[in-house]
Amino acid sequence: MSDEDGSPIFDSLDVDLFVKVFSHTLFSPFFVMLIPTFYIFQGAKITDNVVVFSAIYYVFVSAFWAIKWISRLYSNQGNLLYAPRPFEWGDQIVVITGGSSGVGELLANTLAVKSVTVVILDVKPIQTQNYNIAYYKCDVSKWEEVEAVSKKIIEEIGQPTVLVNNAGVVQGKLILDLSPEDIQQTFAVNTLANFWTLKAFLPGMIEKKKGHIVTMASVMGVHGVAQMTDYCASKAALVNLNRSLRSELDKRYKCPAIRTTLVCPGHVYTDMFATLKAPPQFFFPTLHPITIVKRVIQALDETHSQTIYLPFYAHFMPALQLLPDWFADFASWASNADFAMKDFVKMSGRRPEEGPAPPIEFGNEPKYR
Amino acid sequence: MSDEDGSPIFDSLDVDLFVKVFSHTLFSPFFVMLIPTFYIFQGAKITDNVVVFSAIYYVFVSAFWAIKWISRLYSNQGNLLYAPRPFEWGDQIVVITGGSSGVGELLANTLAVKSVTVVILDVKPIQTQNYNIAYYKCDVSKWEEVEAVSKKIIEEIGQPTVLVNNAGVVQGKLILDLSPEDIQQTFAVNTLANFWTLKAFLPGMIEKKKGHIVTMASVMGVHGVAQMTDYCASKAALVNLNRSLRSELDKRYKCPAIRTTLVCPGHVYTDMFATLKAPPQFFFPTLHPITIVKRVIQALDETHSQTIYLPFYAHFMPALQLLPDWFADFASWASNADFAMKDFVKMSGRRPEEGPAPPIEFGNEPKYR
Repeated sequence: MSDEDGSPIFDSLDVDLFVKVFSHTLFSPFFVMLIPTFYIFQGAKITDNVVVFSAIYYVFVSAFWAIKWISRLYSNQGNLLYAPRPFEWGDQIVVITGGSSGVGELLANTLAVKSVTVVILDVKPIQTQNYNIAYYKCDVSKWEEVEAVSKKIIEEIGQPTVLVNNAGVVQGKLILDLSPEDIQQTFAVNTLANFWTLKAFLPGMIEKKKGHIVTMASVMGVHGVAQMTDYCASKAALVNLNRSLRSELDKRYKCPAIRTTLVCPGHVYTDMFATLKAPPQFFFPTLHPITIVKRVIQALDETHSQTIYLPFYAHFMPALQLLPDWFADFASWASNADFAMKDFVKMSGRRPEEGPAPPIEFGNEPKYR
Repeated sequence: MSDEDGSPIFDSLDVDLFVKVFSHTLFSPFFVMLIPTFYIFQGAKITDNVVVFSAIYYVFVSAFWAIKWISRLYSNQGNLLYAPRPFEWGDQIVVITGGSSGVGELLANTLAVKSVTVVILDVKPIQTQNYNIAYYKCDVSKWEEVEAVSKKIIEEIGQPTVLVNNAGVVQGKLILDLSPEDIQQTFAVNTLANFWTLKAFLPGMIEKKKGHIVTMASVMGVHGVAQMTDYCASKAALVNLNRSLRSELDKRYKCPAIRTTLVCPGHVYTDMFATLKAPPQFFFPTLHPITIVKRVIQALDETHSQTIYLPFYAHFMPALQLLPDWFADFASWASNADFAMKDFVKMSGRRPEEGPAPPIEFGNEPKYR
């Protein structure tokens, strides 16, 4: 979607575009309502087949969205009659782990423009012109560092109101090629870091009974593929952590207004996964980081707990474990997921003993959405 | 089900008993086939409603089991015409982590009686009269210990053919009460240990293109509840590790004959979870360790990869993440799951600094199946 290569400005043609179009037409209650209405205006009788069936179709489409919306309100103690107070962006202090690159960096810059105070925890500093972004050097995989830095942040900036657990690392090796250090690092950065930041910043939120915790998981957290055993396991841990955390906040800490948003994206085009062989783009489109950032900002703005699956195919991944193995095998065959990491090179999160990343050829990026 | 308290020898009355009875009657193809057959013998015509509808019902019941069976064969490269060679119990070397207590101990003793060579890795020795059980002191949460002990085992006993990753620990604290050491221990014992043992014993299996890896997860690995954030996350990691390992074995190591069995039990009555408040027994019966052991032995005997959900309700847990939150909330309310750990006392896996477990009153065990 860059301008240089002369690609058109309209969306790339993939399943997600169809879903978008259909959700505003054939699956939109407003649009569908017009069908029987217009037929009646054209002189059709109310008992005519075309009116009856399109009306029934309208009821089904409306019921689908109504159930979805009521479920969302139910989960967020919402009310059908009045909306919650608008989210005050200027009052927010947002902590983003791993915020110096990739999705975290874009989220930080975008939030800073909305005059949010952004605090970045990362091992390397962020390159930015934004005055609203404060950088704290911190290896979030280490409790001692998170503890020390969090005290400094609360003292110097204030109590964070939003926590975005975004830091992640991927090794991309078959299980027997993973070194013990690889495995330790994956779990320390992808999973344990979430516990450390929660221990550091949740008490302040519980005190005010308000806040929002965003967990960056992955579709690889709801389904496992080859050459990612450690990554898939570490992300699955986050998916279930999000669920038990939700239960604790609701039932035990009595803080339902502390929201929890889980993000399960497919392939996102960032440095981290730049050397992954992108899956067939029509069914499994590669995401631009901005797509994730927009949805996260929407979740914060709505102040609703939600689970975000992106792109569209990701919605179906949790169902695979309920179905016979042929479905998963078909999905694996169609997406080539078990071979996507074959030529993977670890670009980010390299440990000192691994040396610098080799130079790789960029510029042959897939067309992402 | 102990004799002392005078409880009857028949099964306790719960959902699982109904399922058992129905699966041998109303949902058994053989039984159901008799209905139209007997009607015809009684003089009913083949076009009579009762014959037609019971025949249709028979087709549905048979199709259900046929699809289930064919899916199982598909997943295991099986053949409808001939059965695989019987499993030679006497030739097996089974490594069981955490085999000195609970389910692991019972599995070890039961396998030893089947003249299997059992190797136990645990921090404390097993008390047993069985000559077939070898004990190796090993903290499986530490790669160095697993590496050293695995070399000794391969040298002294031979290449293990079955690996049962069973060691586990539970802290039972709310997220803010968990100490960093608690969280580290949970992931080291419940999750990382699986990677260490796989790194140690999988190469030998890949060489022979044969073997069986049993992963003891939990229903808490497919759904999260309060006061178990770390446990739920660590078990979810295992559930997804099992899936990506399956993909690697099939597609990348070309070893489909190395089987992977995932076990997701509900509450099992062992020391580890003795102080959990048992859920309402009719819908969520507490399991006796022998129920798990029998199913694991059956899986080994069939030499088929499988996912074992026990008791019956556990089959529905993975579906909760696909449904609106009210279903999960209803399940949580019905099972009291978010409050079951309220008076929990950590009985097993205590670290030196935690001191010995306090004496607790046993004897008020629930009637388990």
